[in-house]
Amino acid sequence: MLRQFKSVVHSAKVAKVFLWSNIDINIRLMSTKMDRNNFFFRQLFDPVSCTYTYLLGDLTTRDAVIIDPVLEHAERDAGLIKELGFNLIYAMNTHMHADHITGTGKLKSLLPGARSVIGKASGATADVHLADADLVKFGGYQLSVAATPGHTNGCVTYICHEQGIAFTGDTLLIRGCGRTDFQEGSSEALYKSVHQKIFTLPDHYTLYPAHDYKGLTATTVGEEKKYNPRLSKSLGEFIKIMENLNLPYPKMIDKALPANRVCGIY
Amino acid sequence: MLRQFKSVVHSAKVAKVFLWSNIDINIRLMSTKMDRNNFFFRQLFDPVSCTYTYLLGDLTTRDAVIIDPVLEHAERDAGLIKELGFNLIYAMNTHMHADHITGTGKLKSLLPGARSVIGKASGATADVHLADADLVKFGGYQLSVAATPGHTNGCVTYICHEQGIAFTGDTLLIRGCGRTDFQEGSSEALYKSVHQKIFTLPDHYTLYPAHDYKGLTATTVGEEKKYNPRLSKSLGEFIKIMENLNLPYPKMIDKALPANRVCGIY
Repeated sequence: MLRQFKSVVHSAKVAKVFLWSNIDINIRLMSTKMDRNNFFFRQLFDPVSCTYTYLLGDLTTRDAVIIDPVLEHAERDAGLIKELGFNLIYAMNTHMHADHITGTGKLKSLLPGARSVIGKASGATADVHLADADLVKFGGYQLSVAATPGHTNGCVTYICHEQGIAFTGDTLLIRGCGRTDFQEGSSEALYKSVHQKIFTLPDHYTLYPAHDYKGLTATTVGEEKKYNPRLSKSLGEFIKIMENLNLPYPKMIDKALPANRVCGIY
Repeated sequence: MLRQFKSVVHSAKVAKVFLWSNIDINIRLMSTKMDRNNFFFRQLFDPVSCTYTYLLGDLTTRDAVIIDPVLEHAERDAGLIKELGFNLIYAMNTHMHADHITGTGKLKSLLPGARSVIGKASGATADVHLADADLVKFGGYQLSVAATPGHTNGCVTYICHEQGIAFTGDTLLIRGCGRTDFQEGSSEALYKSVHQKIFTLPDHYTLYPAHDYKGLTATTVGEEKKYNPRLSKSLGEFIKIMENLNLPYPKMIDKALPANRVCGIY
């Protein structure tokens, strides 16, 4: 009797294995969900606001989602999605941005059928509102929603456990974090969000933030736990650091927030 | 008699498989080399010249290489390499750049033991000169060198077959290519390089260029074969397109080339 294990053994190369006797073997298998040939990932960049946008897709079903698109690049993003033959089902935000206008509304008009998505606590209009522990499904994949307030009330982190990746928005930046001095910001809440929802992920998980200003594109949980100059500190030290950043008034906020309350179509 | 196939079966998850009879099974195996837990990849960006730099490493042996580092970011790159506990063995260029000064020389001084690497046909000084079909080894991984002249005589593409990725320098850009109107440029040579050395790779291989000016970070062989507006054309059409680009004189070339002939230390 042979167990049907062919169905769970998926990966990139094919090998013929001949077995001549009864055996009991540990095989470190690649799960179907981690098959790099099925999962599509593409990072995109807006040099003006230094925003990263992420396109994720299932190459089998062609369902895709986009995270944190920027209004000025909606045509670029829609063009890429069409070229790649994806069906955009969700245009998502990690939070209501203050430094650029979201492209979700424009993408909806360019790619009919797509639905806008944002955390419920953001207070923004969208087709789908998310809460902690919700799941966002596309094809054979899913993003787990972790409420990570602090930069804003409505910040969420999207986690794809199958791929070992998470999209942290402005909650956790590479060797930094989002500011907490406007838009219901709370240093204590941000610190707890990171320590309870992001630093509890496995060290090897790759983290993709909404921004980077130094040309870095990604980090890992392990790196940030060790080297984040703010969040590797105690809560008390973190709050002091955040209180003394003396950041200028966000130059885009008065334009971005009213627009981002309604998917950027203002 | 049991073939020793445990050594080639490596991946992310562990499953116990019990076999009760003689069988002949096709198992799509993940090769050891593709284990994402062993292979480190990080893309870095210089917003001034829109250059992408790549850090690759073996997480077991901690040997690493960097491709196309930029002088102004040598401290950033060396800091990251130190934080991650890597031993930089090669600081490599895909070609002698005309739009920025290479960071290979400065990285050698910041990280003693690192050796600079460039294609032999570039005419530039370096510790290691490469020719077509050479292999660059770091830890358990290797990059295959493909001579891809056309943008310059000395352009090479570095291919990591185990990971299904290639670093194309300026030979192939995302939906574009490097200019061919200076530095021994040849449209015909570039076209042949791309069609013979890059478009012959499997369609799913991810391609990482030395630059992008529109916020795109990567592409695939399949995408470029289909959508590259220049290189999807015939050789004759391609040559005409390149002849009519009317590009301005490269603003950095007079500063960059003399420096890049000597690893950026000028």
